[in-house]
Order: sequence, then C-alpha cells, then structure tokens
Amino acid sequence: MKPIIAITAGDINGVSYEIILKTIFHPHILEICTPILYGNVAIAKQHAQLLDEEFRTPQGVIITDARKVQEGKVNVITCYPDDTPLEIGKSTPEAGKASLAALKRACGDLQQGLVHAIVTAPINKANIQSDEFHFSGHTEYLTHLFGPKSESLMMMVSEALKVALVCNHVPIQKVPESITADRIIRKLIVLNEALKNDFTIRQPRIAVLALNPHAGDGGLIGEEERDVIKPAIEQANKQGILTFGPYSADGFFGSGHFAHFDAILAMYHDQGLIPFKSMDMNGVNFTAGLNIIRTSPDHGVAYDLAGKNEASPQSFRNALMMAIDILKQRAMNKEINANPLPVPEPDESEFRPEFRSFSEPKSTTYKPNAPAAQQ
Amino acid sequence: MKPIIAITAGDINGVSYEIILKTIFHPHILEICTPILYGNVAIAKQHAQLLDEEFRTPQGVIITDARKVQEGKVNVITCYPDDTPLEIGKSTPEAGKASLAALKRACGDLQQGLVHAIVTAPINKANIQSDEFHFSGHTEYLTHLFGPKSESLMMMVSEALKVALVCNHVPIQKVPESITADRIIRKLIVLNEALKNDFTIRQPRIAVLALNPHAGDGGLIGEEERDVIKPAIEQANKQGILTFGPYSADGFFGSGHFAHFDAILAMYHDQGLIPFKSMDMNGVNFTAGLNIIRTSPDHGVAYDLAGKNEASPQSFRNALMMAIDILKQRAMNKEINANPLPVPEPDESEFRPEFRSFSEPKSTTYKPNAPAAQQ
Repeated sequence: MKPIIAITAGDINGVSYEIILKTIFHPHILEICTPILYGNVAIAKQHAQLLDEEFRTPQGVIITDARKVQEGKVNVITCYPDDTPLEIGKSTPEAGKASLAALKRACGDLQQGLVHAIVTAPINKANIQSDEFHFSGHTEYLTHLFGPKSESLMMMVSEALKVALVCNHVPIQKVPESITADRIIRKLIVLNEALKNDFTIRQPRIAVLALNPHAGDGGLIGEEERDVIKPAIEQANKQGILTFGPYSADGFFGSGHFAHFDAILAMYHDQGLIPFKSMDMNGVNFTAGLNIIRTSPDHGVAYDLAGKNEASPQSFRNALMMAIDILKQRAMNKEINANPLPVPEPDESEFRPEFRSFSEPKSTTYKPNAPAAQQ
Repeated sequence: MKPIIAITAGDINGVSYEIILKTIFHPHILEICTPILYGNVAIAKQHAQLLDEEFRTPQGVIITDARKVQEGKVNVITCYPDDTPLEIGKSTPEAGKASLAALKRACGDLQQGLVHAIVTAPINKANIQSDEFHFSGHTEYLTHLFGPKSESLMMMVSEALKVALVCNHVPIQKVPESITADRIIRKLIVLNEALKNDFTIRQPRIAVLALNPHAGDGGLIGEEERDVIKPAIEQANKQGILTFGPYSADGFFGSGHFAHFDAILAMYHDQGLIPFKSMDMNGVNFTAGLNIIRTSPDHGVAYDLAGKNEASPQSFRNALMMAIDILKQRAMNKEINANPLPVPEPDESEFRPEFRSFSEPKSTTYKPNAPAAQQ
C-alpha cells in the first residue's frame, strides 16, 4: 500500500492552492503516494482556472471519510462550503476559519492513524487566530495536539544544511529568557534522535551556535555562552550526543565551517533561517520529535504573488517527498533498532569515535536466535 | 603627495602582524599610499620569521614622529618595547597593553591631522580592557574619541552588499531596548550621508530589516515593527531618505531582494553579519559618520591560525584600499557639493524622483562667478 499523505489547503487567498495543485497533478505523484487534500474542490477549481488549468476530475475524487481513500486518485475531503468567499491576495476572517477547519480535520485523521503523514500548506498566522487556535504557527499547534513526551523541534532541511531552532516564533525580546540549559539539552536530544531515526545518520555531529555577537567575546558581550550554552553542550556530550560549540554565528557560516556538521542548533529564528534561506530557498520545514510526521514548505502565504501563476511549487514538492522519505526511514530504523547487534567495547589502542555509538547502552538486549546460532 | 595611512598593529599574538606584513610588502602598496605602522619592528621581525620572510629593512624605516614620515617607505613608529613577550596564539595582558599603546598613538596622530586615515588590525577585546579602554570594540572607542555630532555607524562593505547596524556589539538581551525610532533615524541619516559622500551614490535606496521573525507577523511575534521601525521609516522618508521596509530578514536575503538596494540597515550584529559573511569573507568594516576615516578587516585575532602562515590578508588589503578610496571620494564630493548647481523645481507633469535630491534645500547657495558669467 502506498503511503497516505494528508495535505491541508492552508489560506485560500494566498499561494497555497497554487503550489498544492502544481504538486498533486504532477504525473508521478500518484505512483509514490495517495494524497488526501483537506480543503474544498470548488475553491480548488477556481484556483485552477487562475492557473489556466482545469481541476482534472478524472484524477480527483471527493470522499467523505479518510477510511474510504482511493489509491491512484487525488482524494479530497470537503472541510468548508463551496461558497467560501475567495478574495485573492487578501487576509479575510473566512479564510482563517477555512484554514483551521482543514487543519483540524486532517489532524483528527492523523490522530486516528487514518493517514501516515501531514504536509501543511501555508496559513496566515493572523487570521487563523480564534478561541480554538491561539498558537504562533503550525509547529506550536501540532506540538500541543501530539504532545511529545519530551519536546518538539522546528527543523529546516535542505541538501546544503539542516538547522534546528531553540526558539521558534518568539519575539527577540523574549529570546534570552527562553534560552535555558535544560531547554537546549532537550532540543539536542530530539535533534540527535531525529538525525538517527528520520535521516539515518549513524552518529550525528551537531554544532551549537552562540546567542550573542562574537560568541559573547569572553563575557564582554553577554554571559549566556558561559553560563548557559557551554554547560548544556558539556551535559549533552556526557549523554552521548556529539555536540560542539558554541560558535559565533557569522563566522561559522561565512567560513564554511558549518559543512563539517550533520546539523546546527541555532538559538533563534532569524539566526538559523537567514543562512538557511540564503543557501536554498526550496528547503523544507520539518517538525521533529513528534510521534507523527509533519513537513511544510519554508515560505508563507505570499499574498503579493497569489493568483498570478508565479509561485514556485518546489519547496512544497520537497516537503511532500520528505514526508514520504521520513516515513520510510523511520519505519526502517525502528525495525533495525528493535533487535540491534551488540556494540563492541572500544579498543583503546585504536580509538575510532565515528564507529562507536555513545548513546547506546553498553549492555545489549540482543538475544541471538538460539537455533540459528547453533548452525 | 600620497595619502598617509596609519596602520595599528593590533594583538601581537594573533594574525594581525601576519596580515599587515603580507599587505605592506605587496609590491605596489607604496605606489598608492605611505603607510605608518604603529607597533614595533622587533615584533614584526619575529612574525616575519614565522612567515619564512625577512622584514625587509631597505623598505622599512623607523621614525619617531609622524611629521617625519618618508614617502616610498614603510614607516614604523615604535609604540611598545622590543622585549614585549610574544606568545603566539595566547591572550596575554602584555598583548592587550601593546594593542592599546599602538591604537592610542595612532589616534593621537589622527587627531592632529598627521595621517589621513586609519586601518586597524584586530585586537582582542578581552585583554585590551583597562582603565583607559572600556569599550566593546574599535568602533565604540573611535566614536568616543572622534565624537560625532550625530552618531557613528558600523558598516560592512563588500562588492555584493553594504550592511549597517543599529546595534553593534550589544548582547541580544539588550537589543530590543536599544532599538528606538530616534536611533534608527539617526543611523539612517549617517548611512545616507556615507553612501552619498563616501561611496558617491547620488540618491541611495536603503532597506530596513525587521527585528522579529516574519517582521512581527502583524504583531503576533513582537510589536517593535509596528510601534518603532515603521514610524522611523516613515519619518526618514519625510526627511528625504529613500527608505523601505521593514523586511523579514530571512526571506529578504534568501529571495535575493537585497540586491535591489544600495544598503541595508540591520537591527543587530548577527542579523547583518551572517548574510554579509556568507556572501563574502573578505569584506571591510567601515565606521561611517566620523570626521576621520577608519576601516578594518571583518575578522578577529584568530589565535587558532596565528603563526602558521595560513591567514589570508585579503580582507585587510581590501580595508586599506577602501580607506584610500573613501579618502578620495570624500574629498571629491566635498568639492562638488561646495558649490552646487541649482536643483530645478520638479516638473509635476514629468515626475522623476531619481533625478531629484530630496535632501538638498530648494533654495540654493550657488553664486555664479560674475566675471566668468559675463564671458
């Protein structure tokens, strides 16, 4: 069976429908997954017209329940009325309600295990606010719903680099109080596990950025590096996470030093996203640390581009592909790690840290299959 | 007469001497300027040995006073004893004292007009601190000494872009309180004048970055954009400075939008320097808004590279060239603007803002030379 991917339609007045249509009608999409679009066919048809395309009904099918999903079709679950007013390029309360209705329905199906992963198209974080939604973004809403035992993590992924954030959508004013050693360690644990399980990196090497200019310059420009970040890095290393830093952010990216690491933990949004987007505008936003899989493009509703057939679907396509890829890698690694081979004690005369997993317990739960061992 | 450029030797244990030696012994340097190195020949010779080079005495001359400067030579003014202990790669109190002695002597000569510009090699901001120096960097020290009527401005300049900062070496915790409308306007005035006088851009277009992620997302992620930055931009435009924004920093750089502007005003250090250094590691740090001209390379003492003959002098060379260039442009623009032609009143039927200087008064002080006019 192909993976069933929930796609939420996002804000009806931005570029969300455009990038979704340009993705789900790609000739090969139905060969690799079965998409369910949570939105409305009538709205999709209006957007298709703006793209000089028809909403190709032979491929599309309206279903009332995710249990009735059809493979080989673009399935649509109607989440709001056909006459929801479309006002291209404008933020409207109706668009906010529609965004939320689609998101809620998809999350419900995700909770029941009816879909395997969710890819969220951009919402407008202002018009979606309501009694039911008081979050600064998808990441925070999904973390609330699929409440992790530990902590979720906003992660931006491209071919060039993987950047994770300690603070997601936090005003600069509140960043310093949000940076605690405990929080950094929790983020490092989630990041380390995601790199292993979702990206199959055997022993990840993680760089941590400083908060202040020049990494605090020995305490002259801020004390968080000395008092908070360094102790957190030391603690993480004790727990078997190969963590380095804190690095002065400007030189770290400018010198190309970042290329020596599997992932980078940035302290706040712009510190991580400025270099990330400078290198690749088609990156993917992945919420690590949840029991479910969620990806999204790395851009917003882009009202200024809406309805002009000018939006690139590349980031959204990458988000869909990455959701499928993580689904497969997570399943594979779960299987592999369920019954691991014993990890040899390190040979002191030939220390090879890259082959030793510090985070695995020294004792093993591996029980060889007795009959096979006797062969 | 060639411009006389003061070069301060910076921290004796870092890469400062190395990049200076690699610059001042470049075959063509003496054709374009007369350098005075504020430092010590004995220390320079020790560094030259580490580079497998001799300190070529035929070109070098020790002088006791900047008034005795010799064209066609590398002049050296001794600022600390020959036996100042050299400990390559280490931060020592002696190195801090030496850095300060060189800087003070050079600034004294600058104040007396004995040199035309100053290029500062990197200091260690920790070991230089003393009763006489309690600043977070050269920029702040020079601003204190050459106290501007308005405000100085830290500006990073490369071929790709020009970035100026509202907050220089300020801990993130103190950034929000330092961002005031008044301060932004003062920085914009200095930046606008520097672009005109030091870089000969007739009518600069300046982009202003937001402080918070997603430019505050309509107030959801911080209110400084609405309450502080937007009003400052409006005010600056009223004063004739073509200012745009505030732009969400990550998308602004990622989309290449920055290329449409002559300069960018970033709110804080890493916001401006991460993208700047990502695009060009050989940029120059220029302190705009002072009566004197000061440039420096965009890197620090780099203790880890010191004494290995591995440091690139490119940023320092660019800093020296830029100091000379700004000296010439400032003089040229001063001459041009001293006696300007009258600016025509705009023709309402054919509004051409690019040909009109908003910042020039409508009445003119131009007095045609009477005899010449009669010819």
